[in-house]
Amino acid sequence: LDVASIELARARQLQLTKPAGSLGRLEDIAVQLAGVTRNAMPEIQRRAVVVMAADHGVTAEGVSAFPKDVTPQMVLNFLTGGAAINVLARQADAAVTVVDIGVDADLQHPQLLSRKVRSGTANMAQEAAMSRQEALQAIGIGVEVLERLASEGLDLVATGEMGIGNTTAASAITACLLNVPAKDVTGRGTGIDDQQLANKVRIIERAIAQNNPDIDQPLDVLAKVGGLEIAGLVGVILAAAARRIPVVLDGFISSAAGLVAYALCPTVKDYLLAGHLSVELGHRLILEKLGLEPLLNLHLRLGEGTGAVLAMHIIEGALRTHREMSTFAEAGVSDKA
Amino acid sequence: LDVASIELARARQLQLTKPAGSLGRLEDIAVQLAGVTRNAMPEIQRRAVVVMAADHGVTAEGVSAFPKDVTPQMVLNFLTGGAAINVLARQADAAVTVVDIGVDADLQHPQLLSRKVRSGTANMAQEAAMSRQEALQAIGIGVEVLERLASEGLDLVATGEMGIGNTTAASAITACLLNVPAKDVTGRGTGIDDQQLANKVRIIERAIAQNNPDIDQPLDVLAKVGGLEIAGLVGVILAAAARRIPVVLDGFISSAAGLVAYALCPTVKDYLLAGHLSVELGHRLILEKLGLEPLLNLHLRLGEGTGAVLAMHIIEGALRTHREMSTFAEAGVSDKA
Repeated sequence: LDVASIELARARQLQLTKPAGSLGRLEDIAVQLAGVTRNAMPEIQRRAVVVMAADHGVTAEGVSAFPKDVTPQMVLNFLTGGAAINVLARQADAAVTVVDIGVDADLQHPQLLSRKVRSGTANMAQEAAMSRQEALQAIGIGVEVLERLASEGLDLVATGEMGIGNTTAASAITACLLNVPAKDVTGRGTGIDDQQLANKVRIIERAIAQNNPDIDQPLDVLAKVGGLEIAGLVGVILAAAARRIPVVLDGFISSAAGLVAYALCPTVKDYLLAGHLSVELGHRLILEKLGLEPLLNLHLRLGEGTGAVLAMHIIEGALRTHREMSTFAEAGVSDKA
Repeated sequence: LDVASIELARARQLQLTKPAGSLGRLEDIAVQLAGVTRNAMPEIQRRAVVVMAADHGVTAEGVSAFPKDVTPQMVLNFLTGGAAINVLARQADAAVTVVDIGVDADLQHPQLLSRKVRSGTANMAQEAAMSRQEALQAIGIGVEVLERLASEGLDLVATGEMGIGNTTAASAITACLLNVPAKDVTGRGTGIDDQQLANKVRIIERAIAQNNPDIDQPLDVLAKVGGLEIAGLVGVILAAAARRIPVVLDGFISSAAGLVAYALCPTVKDYLLAGHLSVELGHRLILEKLGLEPLLNLHLRLGEGTGAVLAMHIIEGALRTHREMSTFAEAGVSDKA
């Protein structure tokens, strides 16, 4: 982060007409984004959310409450503007980019970025979800998508995803990279019951035992027990950080991608904001590891980028107060007694 | 609340293209506002924040980090658009109404509603802050201001305030109405140190001992140890609830007004949303009493209505997803397996 811009932003915050520190997290955000963007008066003009969609072979093990057909159905819903992410992105004035990075169905739509690496991952309870080559290819697609958006102008990007079964992959990644038991990072996803949850934990344990990923090798973990959309988001996050574009993480799956990106390149965390705290168990542990405090806690568990895009309003408020408020001198207001 | 509209809103939420409950608090908000507005598809067109400003005689006891001159200075800052509430209200498309309900200075401005009940309260450490008649007059002004806004069209109102020393009044009210020790509900306000905090607690204890308000009589508490801006907000809240206009409470001082309104009329709580959780100690206790869960927790402690207006984006997201998302049937998406 750019120290000079951070110092200037901090100094400005102390001059604005409010008690020092009284805007709490808003002040922190303004200072962080000054450092990210090398601009003491950061401004966000263009916002985007990248929604990466893929299927998961592990759904054959009954880990999800919804059938896998829902992945392509929801992709079409994104493309026709009827999903939660569309509504919330319209509200936040964020462009939605939908990427088929591995949906197990033939999808065609003029607005769809078709970048299918393969038609869903393999069933990780039996074999590696994908090869290392495929994981790298998916990361590369994320980089390409971010570069494409950046070339059109981009000041803030949110991560989003769709993929029936992807909380299972996110839990497996998190268990490996945080080196914690699967049960501590496995939740109910779209809404499974107690028995299904116990099964989901067993399947994740089996996938880890079966594939034995090297937990010190994030790419090995990502390929063996990850997902294509998660790999794609790793690329988005790394490319955004490299271009000094701040990234708003959405929930558990997006944050699992953030965790992989962090394991590959620890400085990436300076460019991240946590949009919200998901209901999913593992999410809090990832955010603690990344040193991120979520901006919202609204008991969301939808994904798609919804929590990240909602948090954009808070980020906008942080930058607007930073830029637009009067200073004590300008307003003729007395400072602290 | 209107049960039929609530049932219709709940039924709609179950048909939208998302796992049931996955939008968390957003779903609760949509259902609550359906009940408040008697409309299963609630919509917010016109937003406002009412900023009530007044002075506090108790500042003579050194309870605040800022000199009392800051009250009129900040009122002028509100009127020229340079304060945090102006910036955040512009972002949220909320009109700002500034009311001088008891500032201890001669203020003139075409945009200012001049409704001075008296030039600041008396020093409650020595005598009653105001008479019961003055408290009732201030409540009446809040009612008048809300009625004026409602007559121009109003769908959502936030409470805001300005008054050096008003966390002292809010703590005293809260200690009385929740029947808890002053030290449990007294914080650092605009930023006092440990010694000043200990003094602030002693002053509140003295004010309560000196005036001996009847804790079962909210008007007695409000008059003896309250503030004019707090009384004004009580009127705003009661009048909004009576007109079925939802109210977003801001932080500790606004919520103290909410607590008085609730003590006067318990059903008022159904019409309230808690914008955020303030750093001020007593705020959490008030929200627990009112059964409200804050929408944001951004370590704000500024007041003015800032947290409430920021929360309007969340409320808007709740209503937009409720209205605009496709249903499973419309989108051809499979429901739960």
